[in-house]
Amino acid sequence: MSTDPPLLLALDLTGTFAFGLNGALTAVRAARLDVVGVVSLGMITALGGGVIRDVLIGAIPPATFVDWRYFALAAGGGLIAFIFSRRLDRLDMPITVMDAVGLSTFAVIGASKALAAGLDVAPALLLGVVTAVGGGTIRDALVLQIPTVLRSDLYAIPALVAAGITVLTLETGSYGLPSALGAVAACFIIRMLGVRYKLQAPRPPGKRSVAGPPDDDAAPGPDSGRG
Amino acid sequence: MSTDPPLLLALDLTGTFAFGLNGALTAVRAARLDVVGVVSLGMITALGGGVIRDVLIGAIPPATFVDWRYFALAAGGGLIAFIFSRRLDRLDMPITVMDAVGLSTFAVIGASKALAAGLDVAPALLLGVVTAVGGGTIRDALVLQIPTVLRSDLYAIPALVAAGITVLTLETGSYGLPSALGAVAACFIIRMLGVRYKLQAPRPPGKRSVAGPPDDDAAPGPDSGRG
Amino acid sequence: MSTDPPLLLALDLTGTFAFGLNGALTAVRAARLDVVGVVSLGMITALGGGVIRDVLIGAIPPATFVDWRYFALAAGGGLIAFIFSRRLDRLDMPITVMDAVGLSTFAVIGASKALAAGLDVAPALLLGVVTAVGGGTIRDALVLQIPTVLRSDLYAIPALVAAGITVLTLETGSYGLPSALGAVAACFIIRMLGVRYKLQAPRPPGKRSVAGPPDDDAAPGPDSGRG
Repeated sequence: MSTDPPLLLALDLTGTFAFGLNGALTAVRAARLDVVGVVSLGMITALGGGVIRDVLIGAIPPATFVDWRYFALAAGGGLIAFIFSRRLDRLDMPITVMDAVGLSTFAVIGASKALAAGLDVAPALLLGVVTAVGGGTIRDALVLQIPTVLRSDLYAIPALVAAGITVLTLETGSYGLPSALGAVAACFIIRMLGVRYKLQAPRPPGKRSVAGPPDDDAAPGPDSGRG
Repeated sequence: MSTDPPLLLALDLTGTFAFGLNGALTAVRAARLDVVGVVSLGMITALGGGVIRDVLIGAIPPATFVDWRYFALAAGGGLIAFIFSRRLDRLDMPITVMDAVGLSTFAVIGASKALAAGLDVAPALLLGVVTAVGGGTIRDALVLQIPTVLRSDLYAIPALVAAGITVLTLETGSYGLPSALGAVAACFIIRMLGVRYKLQAPRPPGKRSVAGPPDDDAAPGPDSGRG
Repeated sequence: MSTDPPLLLALDLTGTFAFGLNGALTAVRAARLDVVGVVSLGMITALGGGVIRDVLIGAIPPATFVDWRYFALAAGGGLIAFIFSRRLDRLDMPITVMDAVGLSTFAVIGASKALAAGLDVAPALLLGVVTAVGGGTIRDALVLQIPTVLRSDLYAIPALVAAGITVLTLETGSYGLPSALGAVAACFIIRMLGVRYKLQAPRPPGKRSVAGPPDDDAAPGPDSGRG
């Protein structure tokens, strides 16, 4: 959206770069890939959610195909991850912070675009979350990981909160830069609290009795096995 | 389609609920997921096939995004599966029956929408089947199962029969509620016969000589391993 | 594109058949599938990339849904692979050659369609590559393989070269049958050299020190395990 306020645009571009970087790093850790694979998965992580949203609201070609900056930042993040993958392993926290910025901004922009396209409240919430987590989900499926968003960490829930605040303020006519940044901040804080205190969404009752490797839940990072 | 006869609409809504329930149950069994994962996979199973169809015929936003009942039933099915997953294990047959209702209705509605959008016979058949099995295929890929529809059970074939009857009656001008229900019934009966007698579609010749675990074929339900 | 010169159309149809055949063969080797699975995966391999491209440029319904020849050749290739899977194992080289024809032609046609739809240079390059490799990527994900294109062989890079030549000649007004065939030839030659000399795209630095099975890289064909 060229009419986005500069601050929101800056957050969106930051998030795109962070998703490209983090997505590619996750891919490097999860599977033996070449440069094509690493950069592709970085781009898929950064651009995938927005592309799905744009296809579903009929905004064709997708916004990230029209504005070259998204492309460049996503590919650049992936390339940096490829070259510096070993050194970046030490920068876990800054990357997690930047990734949380992306998660928050993508959810807000996704929900607001969906409402602007005439969708109802529930689909707008869904598309906010899909914008934020869709790319990472495709990446995980391609490297044979069960998508992290489906099984651990607070990742989709903060995105849902951000989308909810966005939809609520848009529907009540109080949406603007302050409320958008408030939604971004709420998502960001919940996400970082989740990382800090290893919060988990509830699991199906009784699954604890299933004999499974106990480290399956405890591992904070992506599995390193190929499944 | 708001012009669907009430009976077909009722079957379609029943199928959406059943797909949400069954899709989420399959996901619970296949992988360790949290509530976000279980409900998401239920919704993907219930709504995924129709969304793919609508994207491919240009019906944007997808029908299930416009009518809140589909959303609510898909999410409700997923939530019920999350809460009662242990108890629902005993209700295998009623769930299989409801799932077969969904398979049948989705195939008929998918094929008829594709023809109405101006597609040719062959793509309309394909989209009938995709409507019926697409959501479950995405779910299986996300929980790292080779999609059941690709490897066992009569699942796609009854859907193809239902789509075929629909296309045939539409092309000959004899489509109506009776023929639609006939197509639904044909698919439902073939599917239930397949479940009852464990019918399988043919496999590639000579694969039997490949040394493989014999239980790979025999298992009627989804694999419980993570791949 | 009905305005394609006959030679390019012939190459495109050849490629569709080869992708259907080769995609289905890869699926047969990778997993225990029935006839529905094998033919479906052949069709997904042959038609998937073009369908994604058409969705993203707004060419709905997708070109392959409108021209029955693509459908018939993709399904025919899959069916032949199902019936003759054992005998076709001996025809590795002819199938690889035909597959390279498909890769080359799909990349050229994909990039030219994307530019014709008004996309910028970078997205047009991307969609050229996606047209060429998208179907195989979906197939691999469904049979639980990490997509070959992401981890080994020169496969995406020759497609990128073909898309690059196409975009360059279109932007400079020198596109025509000779330059299109030149782009096809360049991609084809690089791909076949890659097959002959087992060329690999670079891998992330330092991954060699990771203890992994050495045959993981050496295996030229698709993995036979289920992951």
